[in-house]
Amino acid sequence: MANKVTWGQRGWAHLSDVRSRSPLVQCITNFVSMDFMANTLLSAGASPAMIHSADEIPEFTPKVHALLINMGTLTADWLPAMKLAAQVANQAGKPWVLDPVAAGASSFRLNACLELLGFRPTVVRGNASEILALSKGCVDSNSKGVDSIHGSTDAVEAAKSLARLTGSIVAVSGATDFVTDGQRVIGVQNGVPMLQKITATGCSVTALVAAFVSVDPSHALEATVSALSIFGIAGEAGMETAKGPASLRTNLIDSLHSLDEDTVLSRISIISF
Amino acid sequence: MANKVTWGQRGWAHLSDVRSRSPLVQCITNFVSMDFMANTLLSAGASPAMIHSADEIPEFTPKVHALLINMGTLTADWLPAMKLAAQVANQAGKPWVLDPVAAGASSFRLNACLELLGFRPTVVRGNASEILALSKGCVDSNSKGVDSIHGSTDAVEAAKSLARLTGSIVAVSGATDFVTDGQRVIGVQNGVPMLQKITATGCSVTALVAAFVSVDPSHALEATVSALSIFGIAGEAGMETAKGPASLRTNLIDSLHSLDEDTVLSRISIISF
Amino acid sequence: MANKVTWGQRGWAHLSDVRSRSPLVQCITNFVSMDFMANTLLSAGASPAMIHSADEIPEFTPKVHALLINMGTLTADWLPAMKLAAQVANQAGKPWVLDPVAAGASSFRLNACLELLGFRPTVVRGNASEILALSKGCVDSNSKGVDSIHGSTDAVEAAKSLARLTGSIVAVSGATDFVTDGQRVIGVQNGVPMLQKITATGCSVTALVAAFVSVDPSHALEATVSALSIFGIAGEAGMETAKGPASLRTNLIDSLHSLDEDTVLSRISIISF
Repeated sequence: MANKVTWGQRGWAHLSDVRSRSPLVQCITNFVSMDFMANTLLSAGASPAMIHSADEIPEFTPKVHALLINMGTLTADWLPAMKLAAQVANQAGKPWVLDPVAAGASSFRLNACLELLGFRPTVVRGNASEILALSKGCVDSNSKGVDSIHGSTDAVEAAKSLARLTGSIVAVSGATDFVTDGQRVIGVQNGVPMLQKITATGCSVTALVAAFVSVDPSHALEATVSALSIFGIAGEAGMETAKGPASLRTNLIDSLHSLDEDTVLSRISIISF
Repeated sequence: MANKVTWGQRGWAHLSDVRSRSPLVQCITNFVSMDFMANTLLSAGASPAMIHSADEIPEFTPKVHALLINMGTLTADWLPAMKLAAQVANQAGKPWVLDPVAAGASSFRLNACLELLGFRPTVVRGNASEILALSKGCVDSNSKGVDSIHGSTDAVEAAKSLARLTGSIVAVSGATDFVTDGQRVIGVQNGVPMLQKITATGCSVTALVAAFVSVDPSHALEATVSALSIFGIAGEAGMETAKGPASLRTNLIDSLHSLDEDTVLSRISIISF
Repeated sequence: MANKVTWGQRGWAHLSDVRSRSPLVQCITNFVSMDFMANTLLSAGASPAMIHSADEIPEFTPKVHALLINMGTLTADWLPAMKLAAQVANQAGKPWVLDPVAAGASSFRLNACLELLGFRPTVVRGNASEILALSKGCVDSNSKGVDSIHGSTDAVEAAKSLARLTGSIVAVSGATDFVTDGQRVIGVQNGVPMLQKITATGCSVTALVAAFVSVDPSHALEATVSALSIFGIAGEAGMETAKGPASLRTNLIDSLHSLDEDTVLSRISIISF
């Protein structure tokens, strides 16, 4: 109970900080997710900047508060800018978050994700299949593209190994989301199943992780837990009047914008392992 | 009446198969449509993968259940991957569907569409102006870009010729949608006029055709009819509480997700010619 | 009062003309905005064409009624087509509108915007920070990317200078929008603050400016005022039942589609300076 209150208070504090400080979050992300991701960040109080040209990263990235790199609709010509942005963020001491979308779908994609991983992201967030592919370093012959064919519990050990290997916080999304620094494992149980029927929810919550980490960079694990649970709570609140995936998406954004302390404290559901 | 029941039962069976088998549909599509298309596929029960890099097509495309190629926001650098994907799909025996968006808008675009047509798509779906441009092989000097300046009935003969010439099933969207294999012509009368006021509805229904054909590849004409009518029925159900194009779009996705057998059987409206 | 009626009547006349003539508006725009922009144009009665390939601009752009160029997710490889489209539009006597998104975010971006400005756009629409960056010709070290860090009133003099220098109509968005030809300054007070929490509202209203200018090219200042106020009125009407940014976006599009003369006349709020 004491623990629950603590996580709830921390989640609320992180959301309040994002709202009051409006961090600038640079998003190098796939085409599918851009609209929903930008609206997720705006509704949470952050300031999104969808800027991905190598020609302006050296000048622009040092001004941002966090960087997100998402591998969704990857082509070879996007990779140099992704690597440059990760490098500039590191040099400028800015937190950055990697979303290794469909990492196991092909060797090209897996190698690109592993290369980015070499730039030591502050946080990596993926579904179970993606985290398993990164951890094993091999392509998944049964890949369903962006959809996971594994449950999140199947990937907890892989996430811990990956976190120890890279020094990154690793988050695995699923029915329960798991967040680990390689030692501690925290489970986030907020959210509703229908979120999986909306494209780019995983992408959008990863951008929210970047925003939350930017306001508390020395507690990246806790900020990641907060972002995942706040997004899940907005989904739960949105589900109450949703009639399907599209109205849920609308309601989620509306709820994220107006979420209050009572809702966060009463709904947050976190387990420490 | 017997006929109506038959089409309705077949439409419901196709939708049920998509829901239970969740086919993986690779979409190489324009930037405008990506979000709505992915959400359409998800709400119907399919699994979309927006993957268009030539670097991973040889490895990824053989794993998918169907491929969609949409020419919307075409630039020359996308063409090689489109052709490669069509070729790999053919080699792997996977159905693929072509959406020749704005085929008559320019010679560059027309030639690109004709080149893709040479890879013998399982189904081609366009509006009347697009099918006429493909059939005549000439640019339309009055082109309104993606919007048709012809009614679908004007393009039935062109669709039949095109189907005979290419061996593809050809579908022409409009107030009535027509689907032909060059001999038979089936009319689909589901849908509402306001769907034309939502961008990428044509793109999204073509992706749905790919999903439906993937679960019944030996009956591509029937699966195409089912996809067009199911999408139209979701639009009709959504129209009941819509206040304009944006709420119609939300309602359409919600309806597609929850569509039940009674609604499909009572609403389906198919004419055989 | 007489003035108010005049602006209202003109705004209604412009909207009616867009609805009846359905102008074809070519949009070379950023990935984030494409869906919302196309839906904005469709709901207002215009016909959007998201076509940006240099390979078809010489053939396609002369057929359009207006061109929009938006610098949002700029990369170097998009610039040649942007410049070519501006040139072709000028040669064909078609109005074109520039949206210098995040002009002050980097030298690369600023230079690209200034280059486009050299092609004498009919209208330039930006937020205060963007117009100040263009007017001063220098990068903004405090840039928040696409979000303005200045109020619109701070940029009125810069807008007037820019308009005199370029011959363009210049519009500055903000709590009050200002539109100037370098001499006259008109203020538009329609809209609601929550529009800033929806991504690409600025992009979308600029596309609407292009549609409105296309039906009254000899009165570009007045058509720009009409577009800004009509969009703002749709936002106000949408706000009445909105529960947050996402439902506001849905309602805005729905309202724009059904806006009637009484609503326009009673809500329009214009100040001449």
